[in-house]
Amino acid sequence: MGIQVNRTRAKFITFEGIDGCGKSTLISELARWLDRLSVPYMLTREPGGTHLGENIRKLLLDPSYKNMNQRAEVLLYTASRAQLTAEVILPALGAGAWVLADRYTDATLAYQGYGRGLPLNPLRKIQEWATDCLRPDRTVLLDCDVQIAFERRNGRNGEPDRIERENRSFHEKVRAGYLELARSEPQRFIVLDAARPLDEVIAEFRSAFHPLLPPV
Amino acid sequence: MGIQVNRTRAKFITFEGIDGCGKSTLISELARWLDRLSVPYMLTREPGGTHLGENIRKLLLDPSYKNMNQRAEVLLYTASRAQLTAEVILPALGAGAWVLADRYTDATLAYQGYGRGLPLNPLRKIQEWATDCLRPDRTVLLDCDVQIAFERRNGRNGEPDRIERENRSFHEKVRAGYLELARSEPQRFIVLDAARPLDEVIAEFRSAFHPLLPPV
Repeated sequence: MGIQVNRTRAKFITFEGIDGCGKSTLISELARWLDRLSVPYMLTREPGGTHLGENIRKLLLDPSYKNMNQRAEVLLYTASRAQLTAEVILPALGAGAWVLADRYTDATLAYQGYGRGLPLNPLRKIQEWATDCLRPDRTVLLDCDVQIAFERRNGRNGEPDRIERENRSFHEKVRAGYLELARSEPQRFIVLDAARPLDEVIAEFRSAFHPLLPPV
Repeated sequence: MGIQVNRTRAKFITFEGIDGCGKSTLISELARWLDRLSVPYMLTREPGGTHLGENIRKLLLDPSYKNMNQRAEVLLYTASRAQLTAEVILPALGAGAWVLADRYTDATLAYQGYGRGLPLNPLRKIQEWATDCLRPDRTVLLDCDVQIAFERRNGRNGEPDRIERENRSFHEKVRAGYLELARSEPQRFIVLDAARPLDEVIAEFRSAFHPLLPPV
C-alpha cells in the first residue's frame, strides 16, 4: 500500500496531557517549525475532526448526559477516532503529510482506563481494532501539576464542559496514568515538564524533537 | 447481586431479522401474552431507547453521512447498546421485569460482520465488553426472503434511511448471517419462517415460546 511507503517520511505525532497543560501551544510551535521547513502537515483534534466526529463531540461534551455509561463513553470517543483515522489521518499520511494530533488512543487509556478504572486490556484491544493498529511515531506528553492546569484552564472563557466538571482526584489519576503509559514505552513518548515557563518548555521540546525533523 | 437472583424468573428476549420481516408484530404479540399473565415487561429498540441512544440513532440513520467508516458505525451502535444495557435492561431484569428487545448484539454480527464483511471475532469481543457479557435467554429470528421484506417495507410511509438504502445483496448477506448465527446456537435461537401468513407465524411462535412462559 502507498500509505506504508510514504510513512517512512511523514510522521504521525500525538500530543497528550490533561486539559490546561499547554498542548495547543506546542502543536502550534511544531506547526510553525514544519512551515519553515516546507513540510506538509495537518492538525487534528479529538473528539471531532470530521463531520461525524464533531457531532459525536457534541454528545460527549453535553453536560445534560449525567448518567452516561462508562463503556458508552469509551465507544463514542473511539467511534470519533475511527472516523478520523480512516477519513483524515491515514489519507494525509498516505499523501506524505505529517499529522499533528491533539489527543489519540492514549487519551482513552488515561481517562477511561486509569481515570475511571476500566480495565486497560480490553480498552487497548478496542483501540487497536478501531484504528486498524495505527500507532503514533512519537507522542509528546505534557506533564503538569493538576492545580496549575486548573488555574490555566480557569483563565479561559466559557462554562466547564462535562469532562471538566470531574473532580480533582480524577484528573490526578489521569495524570498518573499518562506517566505510566510513558514509562512503558520510552521509545515513543517524549515527556515534558509543562509546569515550567513556556519558553523553557518550548526549548526542551525543540531539543527533544529536533532529531525527528527532516533535514533542511 | 439482586440482578442474578431475579434473572431466574425474568427473561431477556431479543427479536432479530432484516427490516420488514415483522419483528414488531411478534413483539406486540408476546407483550399482549405477558399482559394476560400479569408478567411485568419492558420493550426496547435499537439503536435508541435512552436519551443518549436516541441521539446516537439520529447520527446512524442520517443519510448525509455517506462515508461513515464501518468501524465507527459498529462503535456507535455498540455505544447505544452499552447505554441501553446499563440504564434500562439490567435494572429492568433486576426488578423482575422481562425485557423484549427489538435487536441486540446479533444485529451487529449480522449487519456489520456478515453484511459488511468485518471479521466476526473482534465484533463479538466488543459486544461482550460493551454489554458486560449479558446474553439473551432466547432470540427469536424472523427469517424472510429479502424481496418479500422489501415489499412489506415499501408499504410503509417515509423516505428510506441510510441503512435501508443499502443494496439488495447486502441484505441477502445479513439474512444468511442471521441463519448462520442461529445454527451455531440452536438452544438460544427460535427461527420462524416469516414469509408465511401472519396467523401461521404467530401460531408457530406461540407453540415454540409456550414452554418459556411462567405458569398461569
